[in-house]
Amino acid sequence: MAAPHLLHDHACLIVHGKDRPGIVAAVSALITRHQGNIVAFDQYSDDPTGGDYFQRVVFHRPDLSAALPALEDDLARTLGDGFDLQWTITDQSIPKRMAILASKQDHCLLDLLWRHRRGDLPVSIPMVVSNHTTAAEDVRSFGVPFFHVPSAGADKAAAEAQILQLLKGNVDFVVLARYMQILSADFLEQLGVPVINIHHSFLPAFVGAEPYRKAKERGVKLIGATSHYVTDDLDEGPIIEQDTVRVTHADTSAELARRGADVERQVLSRAVLWHAQDRVIRHGNHTIVF
Amino acid sequence: MAAPHLLHDHACLIVHGKDRPGIVAAVSALITRHQGNIVAFDQYSDDPTGGDYFQRVVFHRPDLSAALPALEDDLARTLGDGFDLQWTITDQSIPKRMAILASKQDHCLLDLLWRHRRGDLPVSIPMVVSNHTTAAEDVRSFGVPFFHVPSAGADKAAAEAQILQLLKGNVDFVVLARYMQILSADFLEQLGVPVINIHHSFLPAFVGAEPYRKAKERGVKLIGATSHYVTDDLDEGPIIEQDTVRVTHADTSAELARRGADVERQVLSRAVLWHAQDRVIRHGNHTIVF
Amino acid sequence: MAAPHLLHDHACLIVHGKDRPGIVAAVSALITRHQGNIVAFDQYSDDPTGGDYFQRVVFHRPDLSAALPALEDDLARTLGDGFDLQWTITDQSIPKRMAILASKQDHCLLDLLWRHRRGDLPVSIPMVVSNHTTAAEDVRSFGVPFFHVPSAGADKAAAEAQILQLLKGNVDFVVLARYMQILSADFLEQLGVPVINIHHSFLPAFVGAEPYRKAKERGVKLIGATSHYVTDDLDEGPIIEQDTVRVTHADTSAELARRGADVERQVLSRAVLWHAQDRVIRHGNHTIVF
Amino acid sequence: MAAPHLLHDHACLIVHGKDRPGIVAAVSALITRHQGNIVAFDQYSDDPTGGDYFQRVVFHRPDLSAALPALEDDLARTLGDGFDLQWTITDQSIPKRMAILASKQDHCLLDLLWRHRRGDLPVSIPMVVSNHTTAAEDVRSFGVPFFHVPSAGADKAAAEAQILQLLKGNVDFVVLARYMQILSADFLEQLGVPVINIHHSFLPAFVGAEPYRKAKERGVKLIGATSHYVTDDLDEGPIIEQDTVRVTHADTSAELARRGADVERQVLSRAVLWHAQDRVIRHGNHTIVF
Repeated sequence: MAAPHLLHDHACLIVHGKDRPGIVAAVSALITRHQGNIVAFDQYSDDPTGGDYFQRVVFHRPDLSAALPALEDDLARTLGDGFDLQWTITDQSIPKRMAILASKQDHCLLDLLWRHRRGDLPVSIPMVVSNHTTAAEDVRSFGVPFFHVPSAGADKAAAEAQILQLLKGNVDFVVLARYMQILSADFLEQLGVPVINIHHSFLPAFVGAEPYRKAKERGVKLIGATSHYVTDDLDEGPIIEQDTVRVTHADTSAELARRGADVERQVLSRAVLWHAQDRVIRHGNHTIVF
Repeated sequence: MAAPHLLHDHACLIVHGKDRPGIVAAVSALITRHQGNIVAFDQYSDDPTGGDYFQRVVFHRPDLSAALPALEDDLARTLGDGFDLQWTITDQSIPKRMAILASKQDHCLLDLLWRHRRGDLPVSIPMVVSNHTTAAEDVRSFGVPFFHVPSAGADKAAAEAQILQLLKGNVDFVVLARYMQILSADFLEQLGVPVINIHHSFLPAFVGAEPYRKAKERGVKLIGATSHYVTDDLDEGPIIEQDTVRVTHADTSAELARRGADVERQVLSRAVLWHAQDRVIRHGNHTIVF
Repeated sequence: MAAPHLLHDHACLIVHGKDRPGIVAAVSALITRHQGNIVAFDQYSDDPTGGDYFQRVVFHRPDLSAALPALEDDLARTLGDGFDLQWTITDQSIPKRMAILASKQDHCLLDLLWRHRRGDLPVSIPMVVSNHTTAAEDVRSFGVPFFHVPSAGADKAAAEAQILQLLKGNVDFVVLARYMQILSADFLEQLGVPVINIHHSFLPAFVGAEPYRKAKERGVKLIGATSHYVTDDLDEGPIIEQDTVRVTHADTSAELARRGADVERQVLSRAVLWHAQDRVIRHGNHTIVF
Repeated sequence: MAAPHLLHDHACLIVHGKDRPGIVAAVSALITRHQGNIVAFDQYSDDPTGGDYFQRVVFHRPDLSAALPALEDDLARTLGDGFDLQWTITDQSIPKRMAILASKQDHCLLDLLWRHRRGDLPVSIPMVVSNHTTAAEDVRSFGVPFFHVPSAGADKAAAEAQILQLLKGNVDFVVLARYMQILSADFLEQLGVPVINIHHSFLPAFVGAEPYRKAKERGVKLIGATSHYVTDDLDEGPIIEQDTVRVTHADTSAELARRGADVERQVLSRAVLWHAQDRVIRHGNHTIVF
């Protein structure tokens, strides 16, 4: 896995669609004829005869921004018309804009802010929005704007409208860092960018609220965390990353939560890094992670 | 964790009941006045004020078998009458008799036979019972009797009666090594000894049949295995041990099953070892594993 | 493992010395006759016949501070005189005073400060000392005093004397959170309290400097971190905790360092927690971790 | 990772050499013009500007054996002459012939034989050679020839000559499944095929003999196993796979060995599978594992 720094004059091309012979040859020839040099290449086909095909290519091309329009024309012609494939190309020198939504618990929020400050996340963070004010000072000490949007009880729509106004047009993706409000389908649709959540259990083992209490009651010997894209279907979106940690009968619910918090931070930070590096392709209710 | 070999002149005392001050002092004084020397001592209380208390003590006592009757009298008086605690004491030089029930898949079955032959499981294996004949020759090559009891389709009761006749009085516990028949509540009651199962998923994530197919469909990034005591309530018995292993989008269902088989063997063998060493205490739907 | 919060009216008794019959009985009887109720009990003997014996008992005793003098007298008589055992007893309501020494890299330092603020470490932090000023503002934002003691090049003794003056009498243990100066044997002796280090490799695989470069060169498939007590013998002190994480040929040295930083934080925080809870007993070049 | 079964009409092409622009395009165009359809593609470059380049491509080509001569001509022309790259192409329907050398301990040996019988290893096993006779009956029960070549004490050369006579020309690679004799440089050179070893520690932590005793003495909290290619330089060959498992102060040396045996089996079987699938490329003292 490459270093997370921004890469000048590097493009990331994502291709997916029905598998057919000749895709690798067509894509690599296209990159070569535009003076690109491939530095990373991953592909996956769930069935070489008529299945779905996924490809991620990172290539170096001096003076990339000048070359992009011609590249995009060629991609549209070669992949769109010739192979009926979908594609996106991104300039790896431009950080994705990541907003964070949080509530009272700050372990995931602060972990992301610290990793960003240390240069470990290739994103910019235009804002943090919270329904509590507790983290305001901490967030601002990182030089990141903090906005407080209280959850309006019954009138959830008003709070969502306010958040939408802040986010709309300003962000490329949103991270729910233990944000304890459920977002409506309407909000997600209007927002129109990917939303990544961290769920404090190994999904689908303990969906819904209070997974640590349920884990304690069921007497499991491992607890976990799951990062996934948010869809209308609560806790059912495509999983990006998961991990577990060993626990024993002697761990209290509070201790499970403490250990769980460590796993949550690790799992969420990996999911965010991989999304920021265009490593994650959504396909139905799954992800391909290159 | 101690070595799995049989220990001559060693006793294992399990104590449980309501927590009260003075239990440790009473138990250790009792062992001392019977010339025992404590070599391992574990305890757990889920709430020191009025919760449930669990204790496992292993002690060395020269000429143990001669001393046991007096010890048991004293335990009955001191713990039963004095503290209202339940207790069991076992001679660690006597191997538990373990029967294995299996079906077509042999990876868990052979793993247990092989560990036993290497001296890694302090049990005897009086028999293997299977509803298929495929493993007969392998099992007998270990010097272990093999009995074939076909699953009788609709008349499950007849097959269970036949198995019961084989097991009854001859075994101290039973291991279901990927045995693909569901045992009736009546069978379990008549059998009257603990039954340990290996389920090929991280419970409660994918209860029921075909967990690998479900894991593939859900796109999880880890798969697991769970060993638990069998109760009337399918897949809901007290969990003894669990573990997980990392998988990716590129793993086929067959590959998930292959990786899963490795985890199943590990998890089941640990659960069997701990049960054989009297390390597992059942309490409601949980286990305490010392 | 118990919750990390401070426990009022709870004492932790550590006992070690030559194993002999009757120790458990003597200790538990002593606690009972002082109205203590045992809530956690661990013991380990490396050989029940003449080996070394280690015990950790946590007990609840209402009005503990008033009872301590009589308890200590009894312990001296019963264990010291009667059994020739060494013992220490600590009041679990009093947080240990932990100083942190750091250099430029702040991931371990900030992780400890943050866990402390969340109430996950039962310690107080009277000061952070660094040979760089970079972390001053961050540290002070946690309300923790920060002192800058530059490394004086050749005249190391002067810097050490200055640090000693700050620490002496003010701290119960010291954590080296990626502190990049080697402490002299003389300093350690004069300091007279335990010092915990985090080494950025799985010891003893890559002792000394630049373990990530060496790991890359050797082509290992896992990298690790080790937390240990500091002794005169560099990188050879008793190991408290270790962990590893999977890497691949594609990870650059920088990426190894990034992944390693996550393991370092986890390993150091666990070692510090266990030390603060009196769970770690040093014995020769080993540790017993209860 | 693909399923381990043999793949008819599939070829695996390995390419390596100095990185230059256009390699992916050239290789994929070549495969396309020979009617091949790429089903798996991996590449790695340790430095896109003048570093070393490694590629593994699996492609489907109906009637592969008929097409291979023309393919090889084209590869020699295009890659050898045009790019100065080295390449090998293998027919994935032909199992590699794997000999196993073993001594008294049989856990790794039997694990490989069982996995092979279950269809989990795409190899044939023409023979097992051992310097002990203990495993003879077990090995033959798998239908695999067993040859006993006693270690001749001082006259090691005689034993090696005898083993060479058995292996020479009959095998594609050799696995040392806890074979306790050191093979001479001369033997390795004359043998001329890859030799894979399993070392019972996390290398380079405890090189040489008795790693479990050393691990116990050093008080490590994890033990491991390492599978590597054998070179003249004992324990220093390129590492293929490693793993670790958690242990505690209470584990005896015997218990460490028992836990270690489980890790050894896992690590060796993964290394063997990946080698058999042409996933491992040696480069200096490292491996690239696709």
